[in-house]
Amino acid sequence: MIYRKFAHSDLMSEEELLQVHQASLEVLEKNGIELAHETARKILEKNGARVEGEKVFIPGKLIEEQLAKAPREFTLHARNPRNNVLIGGDNTALAPGYGAPFVMDLELGKRRNSTYADYVNFTKLSGASEYIDVVGGVLVEPTDLPDEQRHAQMYHAAVKYTDKAVMGSALGEKKARECVEMAAIVHQGIEFVKEHPVLLSLINTNSPLQLDRRMMESLLVYAEYKQPMVIASLSMTGTTAPVTLAAALVQQNAEVIACISIAQLVNPGAPVIYGSASSVVDLKTGGLAIGSPETALMFSGTAQLARYYKIPSRGGGSLTDSLLPDAQSGYESMFLFMAAVQSGFHFILHAAGLLENYMTMSYEKFIIDDEICGMVKKYFEGITVDRDHLGVETILHVGSGGNYLGEDHTFAHMRDMRLPLISSRKAYYSGKIPDTSANAGKYCQELLEQYQGPPLDKKIENELLTYIKGIKK
Amino acid sequence: MIYRKFAHSDLMSEEELLQVHQASLEVLEKNGIELAHETARKILEKNGARVEGEKVFIPGKLIEEQLAKAPREFTLHARNPRNNVLIGGDNTALAPGYGAPFVMDLELGKRRNSTYADYVNFTKLSGASEYIDVVGGVLVEPTDLPDEQRHAQMYHAAVKYTDKAVMGSALGEKKARECVEMAAIVHQGIEFVKEHPVLLSLINTNSPLQLDRRMMESLLVYAEYKQPMVIASLSMTGTTAPVTLAAALVQQNAEVIACISIAQLVNPGAPVIYGSASSVVDLKTGGLAIGSPETALMFSGTAQLARYYKIPSRGGGSLTDSLLPDAQSGYESMFLFMAAVQSGFHFILHAAGLLENYMTMSYEKFIIDDEICGMVKKYFEGITVDRDHLGVETILHVGSGGNYLGEDHTFAHMRDMRLPLISSRKAYYSGKIPDTSANAGKYCQELLEQYQGPPLDKKIENELLTYIKGIKK
Repeated sequence: MIYRKFAHSDLMSEEELLQVHQASLEVLEKNGIELAHETARKILEKNGARVEGEKVFIPGKLIEEQLAKAPREFTLHARNPRNNVLIGGDNTALAPGYGAPFVMDLELGKRRNSTYADYVNFTKLSGASEYIDVVGGVLVEPTDLPDEQRHAQMYHAAVKYTDKAVMGSALGEKKARECVEMAAIVHQGIEFVKEHPVLLSLINTNSPLQLDRRMMESLLVYAEYKQPMVIASLSMTGTTAPVTLAAALVQQNAEVIACISIAQLVNPGAPVIYGSASSVVDLKTGGLAIGSPETALMFSGTAQLARYYKIPSRGGGSLTDSLLPDAQSGYESMFLFMAAVQSGFHFILHAAGLLENYMTMSYEKFIIDDEICGMVKKYFEGITVDRDHLGVETILHVGSGGNYLGEDHTFAHMRDMRLPLISSRKAYYSGKIPDTSANAGKYCQELLEQYQGPPLDKKIENELLTYIKGIKK
Repeated sequence: MIYRKFAHSDLMSEEELLQVHQASLEVLEKNGIELAHETARKILEKNGARVEGEKVFIPGKLIEEQLAKAPREFTLHARNPRNNVLIGGDNTALAPGYGAPFVMDLELGKRRNSTYADYVNFTKLSGASEYIDVVGGVLVEPTDLPDEQRHAQMYHAAVKYTDKAVMGSALGEKKARECVEMAAIVHQGIEFVKEHPVLLSLINTNSPLQLDRRMMESLLVYAEYKQPMVIASLSMTGTTAPVTLAAALVQQNAEVIACISIAQLVNPGAPVIYGSASSVVDLKTGGLAIGSPETALMFSGTAQLARYYKIPSRGGGSLTDSLLPDAQSGYESMFLFMAAVQSGFHFILHAAGLLENYMTMSYEKFIIDDEICGMVKKYFEGITVDRDHLGVETILHVGSGGNYLGEDHTFAHMRDMRLPLISSRKAYYSGKIPDTSANAGKYCQELLEQYQGPPLDKKIENELLTYIKGIKK
């Protein structure tokens, strides 16, 4: 968790912001949004929208009324209440990389399909991290598990190996309901689940201006149970979104506020996070250019729009286009992570582990990014200014040309400094080869060997395992 | 040059800021500052300070009166007027690494003493850079030149291989006067020099609370000619500064505002930059911990104090403790560079090339940092919001489920994107090994082979060479 003492930066003037908002309403009124689900279309139609086939044309007034119902902040409950996470205010909650189909193997040194064993490992690393607040979801894709079991096994691993707040799966109605039922086992009753956010799920639009059936079903189930959702656009400039950033924001905003409005119509006050996973495409090569300033600018615009609607926001992460945990991986990840925190996001997904945009989770990169999280956290916490920390008496005591090493003031405060977990500096002093990536790999292996997860109640675990066994295709 | 569209962030509340200011005045009144130069002491004494030996106790009122005389901004003139640099406002001017005694050899792959040939190479790289605004000074230490010639040869290389704005040397009275005289040759007359800032020099205090003779002499000469100076504290927490950041700011501030006041007493309105090169020490090892959040926090406090005094500020850079251009080097450099720009510095020294804190210049790192400069520049420039960039007509034309690839709007704007100079992505598509550092080395060699500096007038060059030949020990 990062507590932001520095104020966020605004990308746009208030007038520019309003132009983006108005343009989004114009798009929703004139083009509308295609929703591959009849219930959703009916809900909107009943409230004044016009439906033609799968397309729903939504009046701006309806959107604005619904946006006003979304809560400004909410608490995501963990099985250990000390790990509850307040989403909103000056908090920036962190979650690791999400959805990678590949893992960079520590020993092989190259990428392979990710497995359930990797899922468990990254869950343990997230549990051990001082900075990661939310685990679960598709931390990596457990490609060796049958499809109908994956969401359930992932949820089980998240609550077994950590007691942190957890993400759910947005893979259609059946799986969403199964996630809710498993959460009811862990939190000992569906009543608790109905009254408390316990599963945070990701709903992504299909750009431009569509939402598919699986996502729509999940949205309806989670809204019904008032479980929080990140509602995000995942568009790519120049291909599934316009090439200018202002226009990409307009389209993204149209998609996100339409879906937030549906959630509010289903269950007024349903907790939502305004999200973006929109990316930039290098049209010269056709490849994603995640590690680019344009991505950082999209973060900034996204967070500002969410602030305007008084809804918590999500974006960012320690993202890179690099294939290796090299210098580029370092500077791109830090760039986007800093920009994300500076933008004022309340929830940062992909805070640790990803290489090659969203394709590959790396053990070394996870440790390196955890360091990045710690550095940025300490920076945004600012400094303490009081008579003791101003140290005038000590300065006068030491005087011109003196030395502070032996001062009581130095001893009293020398442990306030954040020391790095890994760094070539550290390795240098210990006489080893100073490469951060190798250090990180070694540190990672030690961490996995030593990790002792918080025990999960045996009865709850047995109930969960029985439930999972019972899941049919 | 970076143009900051985003507002800067303030580290401290106004009340906290005033506490730091007041504490600094208290230190200057009760402990004073030791000045190893009689003229400087006399000037202060004549204006109401009390002198005891080398120590000068300065009343707060005198300091505040002098600070008010320093200009809010000024223009540093280059031999090519198109490269003049406005220091102040929302500008952040960039200069490369400064003062390294070692160079990481491109072919050897390890560090060795830096030479004049390296000085010329890094001057060429700075000339070729789209982002570097100010060259010269001790870009690297030309350890193979005799001491009495170095400042002159460095100045000559800076104006011969580039036509950008130039730094001078602060190595005592004789060398400062020689720099002024050489500038008079380049700018064709001492009258121009007297009326225009043409040499930016670095004056560093000797922490705690001292200024040595060589620096004091340089300060007096440059103030006499109204040539701009960065007046900076170079203290280290826990050793030559207090360990808490608030107290380190108090001591730094006392040193800097005392020296700025002397410059204003010598020549009211002399252009100065409020600077900091203060560093953090890892007291566990005794080594510098430049790449730390505490360094970033010092940046932020420094910039805010300078804003309070309405004086341009200097700090930051792409700094790292790493010994190699690896992941750590990437994330630390980007972290500190982002923090420096976000803090609102007007002049960033060490923007490119340094490894191992201030010890080693690296060719690969210079190229990598140039990329960092470009990314951060593009980010801080923000986005354009107007009817064309909002793209509503294009969004309506493409519609739900469409594709933007063939749109006129896409063709019209696809070149607005900043593409990276180096990246493993680029290498990946060309089928080579994707390591940024190797790419950067290759790119650097090409750049050096192709570089054609702007021609320097033959007459001026001959005059400069004759002048340099005449310099005696």
